[in-house]
Amino acid sequence: MGADGAVHDAAGSDDGMGTLSRDGFEPALLRLIAPWLGPGPGKTPVIACGMVGSRQGWAEVPYRAVPCKPGAAVPQAVETADPRLSLHIVPGISQAAPPDVMRGEETQIAGALADLPQFDGVLCLPGTHTKWAHVSAAEVVSFQTCMTGEIFALLSEHSVLRHSVGTGSLDRAAFLDAVSEPLSRPERLAQLLFAIRAEGLLQGADAPRARGRLSGLLIGAELAASRPYWLGQQVLVGGAEPMAGLYRAALEAQGVPVILRDAESLTLAGLRHAHAWLTETIG
Amino acid sequence: MGADGAVHDAAGSDDGMGTLSRDGFEPALLRLIAPWLGPGPGKTPVIACGMVGSRQGWAEVPYRAVPCKPGAAVPQAVETADPRLSLHIVPGISQAAPPDVMRGEETQIAGALADLPQFDGVLCLPGTHTKWAHVSAAEVVSFQTCMTGEIFALLSEHSVLRHSVGTGSLDRAAFLDAVSEPLSRPERLAQLLFAIRAEGLLQGADAPRARGRLSGLLIGAELAASRPYWLGQQVLVGGAEPMAGLYRAALEAQGVPVILRDAESLTLAGLRHAHAWLTETIG
Repeated sequence: MGADGAVHDAAGSDDGMGTLSRDGFEPALLRLIAPWLGPGPGKTPVIACGMVGSRQGWAEVPYRAVPCKPGAAVPQAVETADPRLSLHIVPGISQAAPPDVMRGEETQIAGALADLPQFDGVLCLPGTHTKWAHVSAAEVVSFQTCMTGEIFALLSEHSVLRHSVGTGSLDRAAFLDAVSEPLSRPERLAQLLFAIRAEGLLQGADAPRARGRLSGLLIGAELAASRPYWLGQQVLVGGAEPMAGLYRAALEAQGVPVILRDAESLTLAGLRHAHAWLTETIG
Repeated sequence: MGADGAVHDAAGSDDGMGTLSRDGFEPALLRLIAPWLGPGPGKTPVIACGMVGSRQGWAEVPYRAVPCKPGAAVPQAVETADPRLSLHIVPGISQAAPPDVMRGEETQIAGALADLPQFDGVLCLPGTHTKWAHVSAAEVVSFQTCMTGEIFALLSEHSVLRHSVGTGSLDRAAFLDAVSEPLSRPERLAQLLFAIRAEGLLQGADAPRARGRLSGLLIGAELAASRPYWLGQQVLVGGAEPMAGLYRAALEAQGVPVILRDAESLTLAGLRHAHAWLTETIG
């Protein structure tokens, strides 16, 4: 990226904490960015966030505890074998009670606040593990994680429900109906999941309806657990489509005003901010 | 089995609906029981129940609808290539509203009623998919399925929680505490799952505690959804250890009187009953 935030080039791979050993991170990065590095001796700044800073990552970077300003995190320097790299990893955030952790989303929050410095309200960052964060005066006051994305993937691909939900689109009306059920009767959730399968067997319910119901029940259960976060609040949803749109629709159906932002843009803005902050604090 | 119910010999394999094509069922059975068959021309009665009668099974046997007597199901004759077999499959039970189906558990219920013909109350049959059945006057009046066993397996083996819950024993006190949480605050469930992981990372909670909490939260959510079944009722839990014991402990903690029965014994009693019923009705 340029100093102005312009993206000059991009590269990605599926390598990550799940597959790499500690020694494997630097070679994995170099496979992607070696063409961008000069012959030296000048160093290229690299700012990283997410699970790369976890115990199983490239280097463990201690969490910062709430309340804290995601925009005031000093990325931790990590030594590299290649002298052309100047690597820093953004620390994650932890919360003692209820116990919770994030790595990566603090950078998205910093990115959102770089754009909306006066934002006071709640961020919802849907993903494998959706984060809800209460932000006030540029601080993360509290946050909570729901495993909704991961549970949806496991149930839709690996449980008996895979026979019912297919792999295609979802029925939006069935989705919204299903969202409302755990919100009004959260105690019934465990019984409603298998009914998706039975409805298919007995009444021939089609895959888009079944997929809409599964997604709606799980997001509805998440909204039930997150009610103290979104009730009466302005919510900024930062995610990728189609998931971000589903969260927006579910929240708007509860009368919650939603601002939508693209997750990747938030991450890039947060990394750019981290680099600027590092330059400013370290000089 | 002998006519008196004595088991002369037993054999098993992992072959089943998930892996066999329709043509594969008879060879799979013969691999197990060929040594027990005479040279002919006499036929050996074979009574089958479960997913063998589903659309993806050996032969599709239509469901019977509730209310119905599980002990009065006439097993359906299925033609076999081997002339030494006389195969009958016990029909499953369906319910239109809320939509639900069972295959196999109706045989366990018939087995329980063969032993306790006056039983009036609720059967809880824990397994991959736990069935709750309200039984009165020898009829299944209504029933409900919870995917608790399957969801526990997916979360404990394939989700991020696998790093926390281990593969060993569970802490019984943590289990019982966790059971009570979705019963009193069902809306919080979605938030409590990831906290198991965070508690491990931040506070070093050990695997038996994490495993107890995951199992307890899921069984607690099931009890919340099944409250109309067990509240103020006598419950017969029919399952295999250790799962059956966990359900018993969870129910007893809610003040519910529990009778415990071994699942396999119930199935054998039900199959024996089905054979006797077949002989009586067909002659």
